Amino acid sequence: MTSRRRATGPVTLKQVAAAAGVSVATASHALAGRGRMTDTTRARVQETADELGYVANSLARGLRTGRAQAIGIHHQSSAAALATPYFRDFLAGAIETAHRHDLDVVVLSSDASQPRATTPRVDGVVVVDPIGDDLRARELMEMPVPVVAGEHVPPQMSQCAVVAADHETAVRAVLDAAAAHGARRPLLAAPDAHSGWGILLRDIVARWCAEQGTTPVLVGTTFGDRSVARHRTLLEPVLAAHPDVDLVLGASSFVVRGAMEALRAAGRVPGSDVLVAACADETALAAEDPPVTAVELPAHALGVACVERLVALVEGDEDPVIAARTVRTVPAPVHLRASTAGDLLARRG
Amino acid sequence: MTSRRRATGPVTLKQVAAAAGVSVATASHALAGRGRMTDTTRARVQETADELGYVANSLARGLRTGRAQAIGIHHQSSAAALATPYFRDFLAGAIETAHRHDLDVVVLSSDASQPRATTPRVDGVVVVDPIGDDLRARELMEMPVPVVAGEHVPPQMSQCAVVAADHETAVRAVLDAAAAHGARRPLLAAPDAHSGWGILLRDIVARWCAEQGTTPVLVGTTFGDRSVARHRTLLEPVLAAHPDVDLVLGASSFVVRGAMEALRAAGRVPGSDVLVAACADETALAAEDPPVTAVELPAHALGVACVERLVALVEGDEDPVIAARTVRTVPAPVHLRASTAGDLLARRG
Repeated sequence: MTSRRRATGPVTLKQVAAAAGVSVATASHALAGRGRMTDTTRARVQETADELGYVANSLARGLRTGRAQAIGIHHQSSAAALATPYFRDFLAGAIETAHRHDLDVVVLSSDASQPRATTPRVDGVVVVDPIGDDLRARELMEMPVPVVAGEHVPPQMSQCAVVAADHETAVRAVLDAAAAHGARRPLLAAPDAHSGWGILLRDIVARWCAEQGTTPVLVGTTFGDRSVARHRTLLEPVLAAHPDVDLVLGASSFVVRGAMEALRAAGRVPGSDVLVAACADETALAAEDPPVTAVELPAHALGVACVERLVALVEGDEDPVIAARTVRTVPAPVHLRASTAGDLLARRG
Repeated sequence: MTSRRRATGPVTLKQVAAAAGVSVATASHALAGRGRMTDTTRARVQETADELGYVANSLARGLRTGRAQAIGIHHQSSAAALATPYFRDFLAGAIETAHRHDLDVVVLSSDASQPRATTPRVDGVVVVDPIGDDLRARELMEMPVPVVAGEHVPPQMSQCAVVAADHETAVRAVLDAAAAHGARRPLLAAPDAHSGWGILLRDIVARWCAEQGTTPVLVGTTFGDRSVARHRTLLEPVLAAHPDVDLVLGASSFVVRGAMEALRAAGRVPGSDVLVAACADETALAAEDPPVTAVELPAHALGVACVERLVALVEGDEDPVIAARTVRTVPAPVHLRASTAGDLLARRG
């Protein structure tokens, strides 16, 4: 505290206004660079504020308490993601939980083509679906505030506390159901090494195959690619090269629909002579012919759990060093449908 | 700028760390009140920062530019409202638009039972559905930043720029359709004087009735009350007292469903001997028997338009004094359904 400050606290806007001979409203507008006044008035208020060592109130309070009473939510492309039920449900869960703790939620703009001069004023950040080549996410994850990732973090990003769906249990349930119908040779098409989720899915399928004495066919896709046609083009040559594939697991509904088109073009019958499943459910999948088995990602519960964990870190209720090495999971229900019910054993005779 | 600052800009965290003899990370944690260090170290960093006149980077930058690069969104009960398609769609439109302008969106916590020590650090605020007895909304609307209300402002709040659905055109279309089927005596149950929307609805119906040489029955409800049973209880005595009512207009689906229960209990047949319509559509209304005529509130378009108008005010592209007196409207489609198609003229003979 310097000698220019009152003993009882920082200089108030009222004091600045009185010293500059203007109303509080004018002083406020002058310092915010708004309102209608002469340049002389504006300059006089600014000089008075500088002389008195005035810092705008909310900022001064923020500096005193060290808390912004706000958390940030980042998604690689949040504006586009708002069209998806997943991000809307996640956001609803996150906001409900933050508001229960009386925290504002800052939905951070994610346009990486517009560099930001400022860092967000938040007590912590949730990074939804961290993707390795998302430079803004990487910046946020290196800020000196707690960070929780909503899904697994790829190796090229700073490790942090993770809250994720329990993909392992769910994907194994799908694999086991398909195996019970005779599937032996899975193909997995899932996001590439920029996605911690994609890495995990490959790992789960590879370990399951090793246990069964078989090997998977693994195909890398781009996280967030919503083109059915691109996935069909990607998968056609792979399916042609591996005619023994009898189970196609796609990370998203877009991968699965591309795969079904590719399979049909090759004269195969999804759900009958080849089984198909998705690692992330969408309404469209239940309406496919045949309806497609899928893992339901619990978006709302993940939003809740991410914010609860972030609050625990901000409040110091969880050790940050241990937190950065631990993953909390949320159950992910599996919807078994006709696409994995074809009897491959009977067909093999 | 005081003499303690470098000529080229404010003191950096790096300079504070060097002067205090600690790493940049330690200095950052010390000033944020986090991390693990002795009290002596934390105090030394704080003293060094005070001596050098250091202000945390993002804040310093904010003070320089006068912009937070963020806008606030307030709703009387935003956590609960997230369960409704209206607020989710509004929020999606608002976030998409703000992010197009590279602005963060702060979804403000609205628990009025928890007083806030700080004002949010935003360049402007959108108040969704302003309600007169929402004290936090009133505080926000008196902040020295631009405010846009998403819906009409009741008289007890500060007037500001408004973006609203075009209720006038839509409700008149419903009234005209009902009149063509013989309706002469409307009852309107809509939010009370705390709601600018409720006031407007009453005004629209009263003026339409005056033009037709009739008078409406007007009933005040509580904005946001989602109980069908309470609305039934409220409306039963009113309907008994006014047996000549031949059109019931309810503000929400909850009002309408309560009204239909009250009408049936009185031996009347909605859609046949009494017409029914809602001023705000919800999926449930099309599934009622009979399906209920309703005005579709364009939530997503309102979210977009509110943020576009707020940006224009923040950028100085719209005159704030004129803006505070003008309402911009967004078209609200009308869905005419069986509940207003009963032929009252034929029944009267």
